[in-house]
Amino acid sequence: MFVILVYDVKEERVAKALKICRKYLTWVQNSVFEGEITEAKLRMLKDELKGIMDETYDSVIIYKFRTKQYYERETLGIEKPSHEDFIV
Amino acid sequence: MFVILVYDVKEERVAKALKICRKYLTWVQNSVFEGEITEAKLRMLKDELKGIMDETYDSVIIYKFRTKQYYERETLGIEKPSHEDFIV
Repeated sequence: MFVILVYDVKEERVAKALKICRKYLTWVQNSVFEGEITEAKLRMLKDELKGIMDETYDSVIIYKFRTKQYYERETLGIEKPSHEDFIV
Repeated sequence: MFVILVYDVKEERVAKALKICRKYLTWVQNSVFEGEITEAKLRMLKDELKGIMDETYDSVIIYKFRTKQYYERETLGIEKPSHEDFIV
């Protein structure tokens, strides 16, 4: 399946969240990741994130799509990765 | 169509970008919006954003889906809007 993951975590946890997400998905913009992933790998990603998150403060939203067939992606301005490796 | 919009703009432009996006879509998390929108309204939104963006620095990604049929959304941690009105 194709997923888009966005997180909004407290500053002190951003580096850890970024490191975890980059193991499974592609970083596309500040706190935004996307990519194809299996159910099993998504479960692992979620478990790792839960392990570092403060679930009373932080927020992670995962948009899951069974198919990329009806999907189109448009960028205004620059494609971030070309600009900096990543923003912590 | 259903869209997810994420922006990464310079601090001084965040308030303007937020104001524009909230006219057309629902704020769901720091710099993340979603919602149903027509092609015409999406064009208006993009034109307004282009009017305030520095396209050599800022980045806006718009994920467009013809249908929400294959779409599932999962949240870990809190749903931000319940926590604060919005974060600038």
